[in-house]
Amino acid sequence: MNLDLQPGQKLARGVARHLRSHNFVSVEEFVPTRGLRVDVLGLGPKGELWVIECKSSRADFQSDNKWQGYLEWCDRYFWAVDIDFPTELLPAESGLIIADSYGAEIIRMPDEQKLAPARRKVMVQKFATHAARRLQALRDPGIPPEMLP
Amino acid sequence: MNLDLQPGQKLARGVARHLRSHNFVSVEEFVPTRGLRVDVLGLGPKGELWVIECKSSRADFQSDNKWQGYLEWCDRYFWAVDIDFPTELLPAESGLIIADSYGAEIIRMPDEQKLAPARRKVMVQKFATHAARRLQALRDPGIPPEMLP
Repeated sequence: MNLDLQPGQKLARGVARHLRSHNFVSVEEFVPTRGLRVDVLGLGPKGELWVIECKSSRADFQSDNKWQGYLEWCDRYFWAVDIDFPTELLPAESGLIIADSYGAEIIRMPDEQKLAPARRKVMVQKFATHAARRLQALRDPGIPPEMLP
Repeated sequence: MNLDLQPGQKLARGVARHLRSHNFVSVEEFVPTRGLRVDVLGLGPKGELWVIECKSSRADFQSDNKWQGYLEWCDRYFWAVDIDFPTELLPAESGLIIADSYGAEIIRMPDEQKLAPARRKVMVQKFATHAARRLQALRDPGIPPEMLP
């Protein structure tokens, strides 16, 4: 199953699995603000917010000119790459996760830059909304478009 | 599809669809605290929390001795029933929704009893966790049990 996932989506699946073992839940392709979309947003039991960007290749990393914009939307920021990725390319202050389709390991835990409480509140609300919308879309695919605002 | 839903689940699906038109998202079978499980918990754009209990028959309503325990976990409390339900049985101060599998309408909007901010914060966090766990279970059914805490 899920054999048709893109390379980055495979990494995201493994990351999402691993986050569960930290008692975090997660969503994919989350939009914190217009024009930004993070690969994985993890939410911890105390409202901790981690962003994980999944890079399947050197080119995928080098073409990303938006990642610094993600830092202000999370407490910790990680890269997730596969075992063959040249990790020396990655900023040393970011977190590092080695992942595949089936799981992942946190290799380097980055320092925490705590979000302001007001922003955390908005982000948890947005996370809840994103997850519930995706869940409903899977459970009830027949919902008529005119019922969606 | 979903023709194997139980009567209460059919009402819940219609309620969930209708909530979207109010810009609310929702989850089903949410546990606010040990021993309580609400049929539908709706979350509004400003963090509003609505509980909707779905009753498929008079007996289903009359056997429910827990519903007053739900009031302290939401801003507004509703019953959702089908068009043939004897609505005179329902408490007049509760909200009333008439539903079927395909949609619903709010017939009576109950007064708001606003949650304290600390409880709302916990509830939104729990809603997010619940929705994300259910979403991951559907998207990645092969997650090994030992990865789940």
